[in-house]
Amino acid sequence: MFLLNTWYVAASSTEVQDKPLGRKICGERIVFFRSAEGKISALEDFCPHRGAPLSLGFQRGDHIVCGYHGLAVDCKGHAAHMTGQNTNQFPSVKSFPAVDRYGFVWVWPGEASKADESLIPVMHWYDNPEWAYGGGLYHINCNYLLMIDNLMDLTHETYVHSTSIGQSEIEEAPVKTTFDSHTVRTSRHMENVKAPPFWQNALVAQGLPADGLVDRWQVCKFSLPTHVMIDVGVAVAGKGGYEAEQKDKASSTVIDFITPEDEHSMWYFWGMARQFKADDKDLTEQIRKGQGGIFSEDLQMLEQQQRNLVHWPERRLMKLNIDAGGVHSRRIIEREIALEKETRTAKA
Amino acid sequence: MFLLNTWYVAASSTEVQDKPLGRKICGERIVFFRSAEGKISALEDFCPHRGAPLSLGFQRGDHIVCGYHGLAVDCKGHAAHMTGQNTNQFPSVKSFPAVDRYGFVWVWPGEASKADESLIPVMHWYDNPEWAYGGGLYHINCNYLLMIDNLMDLTHETYVHSTSIGQSEIEEAPVKTTFDSHTVRTSRHMENVKAPPFWQNALVAQGLPADGLVDRWQVCKFSLPTHVMIDVGVAVAGKGGYEAEQKDKASSTVIDFITPEDEHSMWYFWGMARQFKADDKDLTEQIRKGQGGIFSEDLQMLEQQQRNLVHWPERRLMKLNIDAGGVHSRRIIEREIALEKETRTAKA
Amino acid sequence: MFLLNTWYVAASSTEVQDKPLGRKICGERIVFFRSAEGKISALEDFCPHRGAPLSLGFQRGDHIVCGYHGLAVDCKGHAAHMTGQNTNQFPSVKSFPAVDRYGFVWVWPGEASKADESLIPVMHWYDNPEWAYGGGLYHINCNYLLMIDNLMDLTHETYVHSTSIGQSEIEEAPVKTTFDSHTVRTSRHMENVKAPPFWQNALVAQGLPADGLVDRWQVCKFSLPTHVMIDVGVAVAGKGGYEAEQKDKASSTVIDFITPEDEHSMWYFWGMARQFKADDKDLTEQIRKGQGGIFSEDLQMLEQQQRNLVHWPERRLMKLNIDAGGVHSRRIIEREIALEKETRTAKA
Repeated sequence: MFLLNTWYVAASSTEVQDKPLGRKICGERIVFFRSAEGKISALEDFCPHRGAPLSLGFQRGDHIVCGYHGLAVDCKGHAAHMTGQNTNQFPSVKSFPAVDRYGFVWVWPGEASKADESLIPVMHWYDNPEWAYGGGLYHINCNYLLMIDNLMDLTHETYVHSTSIGQSEIEEAPVKTTFDSHTVRTSRHMENVKAPPFWQNALVAQGLPADGLVDRWQVCKFSLPTHVMIDVGVAVAGKGGYEAEQKDKASSTVIDFITPEDEHSMWYFWGMARQFKADDKDLTEQIRKGQGGIFSEDLQMLEQQQRNLVHWPERRLMKLNIDAGGVHSRRIIEREIALEKETRTAKA
Repeated sequence: MFLLNTWYVAASSTEVQDKPLGRKICGERIVFFRSAEGKISALEDFCPHRGAPLSLGFQRGDHIVCGYHGLAVDCKGHAAHMTGQNTNQFPSVKSFPAVDRYGFVWVWPGEASKADESLIPVMHWYDNPEWAYGGGLYHINCNYLLMIDNLMDLTHETYVHSTSIGQSEIEEAPVKTTFDSHTVRTSRHMENVKAPPFWQNALVAQGLPADGLVDRWQVCKFSLPTHVMIDVGVAVAGKGGYEAEQKDKASSTVIDFITPEDEHSMWYFWGMARQFKADDKDLTEQIRKGQGGIFSEDLQMLEQQQRNLVHWPERRLMKLNIDAGGVHSRRIIEREIALEKETRTAKA
Repeated sequence: MFLLNTWYVAASSTEVQDKPLGRKICGERIVFFRSAEGKISALEDFCPHRGAPLSLGFQRGDHIVCGYHGLAVDCKGHAAHMTGQNTNQFPSVKSFPAVDRYGFVWVWPGEASKADESLIPVMHWYDNPEWAYGGGLYHINCNYLLMIDNLMDLTHETYVHSTSIGQSEIEEAPVKTTFDSHTVRTSRHMENVKAPPFWQNALVAQGLPADGLVDRWQVCKFSLPTHVMIDVGVAVAGKGGYEAEQKDKASSTVIDFITPEDEHSMWYFWGMARQFKADDKDLTEQIRKGQGGIFSEDLQMLEQQQRNLVHWPERRLMKLNIDAGGVHSRRIIEREIALEKETRTAKA
């Protein structure tokens, strides 16, 4: 079950440049392509002529051309040209609202008439000279909700990421979870602790001592449909922690866009936006590689957790205080899916 | 659905020499082996003793010997010998009519009593000193009918094979399709065009200018159950095209034997028989490699087309004029399958 | 169908040392781990918190700690500790009786209350200075009963292992099968034969002539649930064969523990215990490698036999005299499974 009338990240903008990209999103096989002026379009990945995937074709002007027999389809999914044929009566394929924004391709898999670009969340760090961003993409064979659970409870860092960002103080610090009708916020603050290796490196990059005591924070923010933004950082102890001045801390925002492929697999767009040394491209790449390595440690756990839940479908998972972030996020998603279903039923 | 009372190509003759070959044809697991005198036999690939595949065994005299416990089975599928056992009462396995002809192993997967070797189509180029032949085998994960569609509409050459045999004049030239009760013929003629790279090479090999204008033809001939022979070539422009004298043209016949493995996969025996420089073995090998490379370009398209048709089972494919060759070929196959079914039902 | 109230070999002892081991046995996903004192425990491989596999965690004292969020579970499957949580009301996971004995981890997948360590068969060769043992493990994609058939009829050595231990005299020698309510014994004796390569090496290692005539024997002994011990050897001809004095023979016992993974796959623990040159570790390793190579020859045959039996589910296998060992072993297993089922039904 997925929320459909919403924007998901389907790709990074660089994945759709000279060539079309085929990708399954929420169970829909979709081809993404770019017009001559760079506008993104998304269509069912199915040529109306003989059913070949349009993603094996190529872009020509504002059309995507099927690589099998040359039917050109426009950005609305209408057959536009085929040598020797009158395409007026050709069937169309469904088009999906799609937008290129903040370095990502966003797609709306549900009812096109409801798509509203203003609903795409604002990424204030994008094209902002005070911020730098680096990220990547993982395909994971698990239901997307398991990834939301993962990110809304960072207790797992102590265990899964013990050599980089984990430390025992994480699980020892209490979490506080708050929520409203559309968002959830789980925060954890640790005071007077040693910084773990990843943050020691960040302190050094920021020109701060690596081995002194710090105040550390993790503030996980869920928003619909499946976004999790996490403010993370360390400040020299006693300087105000999360609220410390920029010069006394190393901080960043972990960006997580979670896109269902189908019920059993997902696309994970991960990244980090930081506000220190924003013009140091080498540092951006170094952080990107480090984060990519750390986040890859979750894959085996998530995929085997998925395999276990399929094996024992009747078992209920526990809902501890540390799980509250995921539990409330799931409730919001479930409620929205139910609302969407009601609307569809009422119409029918 | 497959036509069963017919001859399919199951293997090249060289695939069944010193060792048995196991291959699934039309859903039947079959082992092919050769007697001491070289006669081909085909049996269910199942040892009556403990169910091991006979194809893991070996040939001994006129028998195939199971590689597990040594039961020898004769060419009719009867248990013939086992050390220390009286095999008289052993169950038999089904045998299939099989013939070695024209460099191929032919098998009749249906009712053995109806098998008639005279129904195997004559390959006039075989063992004919004026002709040379080279070919290969691909396993493709698609229904066999998609391959017939592919070969009966060469419009796709413009797109799938754009760097070798494709050219825009193909899709621009009208096709003409004729048919009778058992065969279909689709032809396309292009006049005063430049030869594409593959044919430039052929012109050079034939001692003709590579860069002059030529008349080009493609005549695709479908016959039951799934054979497609394609006369292709180029002649110096104005010399009569398809009808030009041998000295003014480079021409050949593409040989396509399409054998269902099951509903979702097939064996594709492809090759080329040519009438020029027939004794030039290096040229034969060069053409074979070139053709193998070109034909491999279809695999991804066919397999992803198959995947799409499974994903959208309710969708109907279009039937344009260029598709007429495939459409009529499918009608003939469907009619023959229905006839075969009626006959079986009437008997039962 | 598996017998459940019985001991199976789940792993070699060396597989469960510093880290937990996840393994599916008789359809149950199980994690094996070791306490600080080295005692083996077996639990469902499912963390009660969020369903992650405990086998991705680690051992700490007498507990296994989940590698996702740190729940510690004790050897009975009870939640024992989690930082910041009161685990008293946490659900437990099922524990399975498990014992480390004779270099193997034994598990009882059925009713724990019926588990009795004294039912584990005695391995007289273990920790006995007069004996040496070497072995290994194969995962095979076939039903476990096919492996029992394989080992209770060594006729297949003539075919599957023709270059090492096979010889035509095996299939020519009659077998004698006897059985009681819980065991089966199939024996075969060959007199005045040449030793095959494997046994020539053994004769040399034993200081006996490799190329003289020998008496050879194979005595296969099945016992519940799925164990097959095979006394094999050669003696200088006329010295008493199986009963010959140790100095006149090279002999050993093939150890086969066969453990179902599920209906279509199994774990095969193979090895050889020998009574000659027991302190020659190089010889042990040389024999182990040789046996591993020979036994790997069975894998393709067993997996393709399995594939054939799935393809032709209605076919009955033959039951020849040479198959009697497997046939009687299967009858004993089937009867015990039926008894177990009756007991469960009576209780319910």
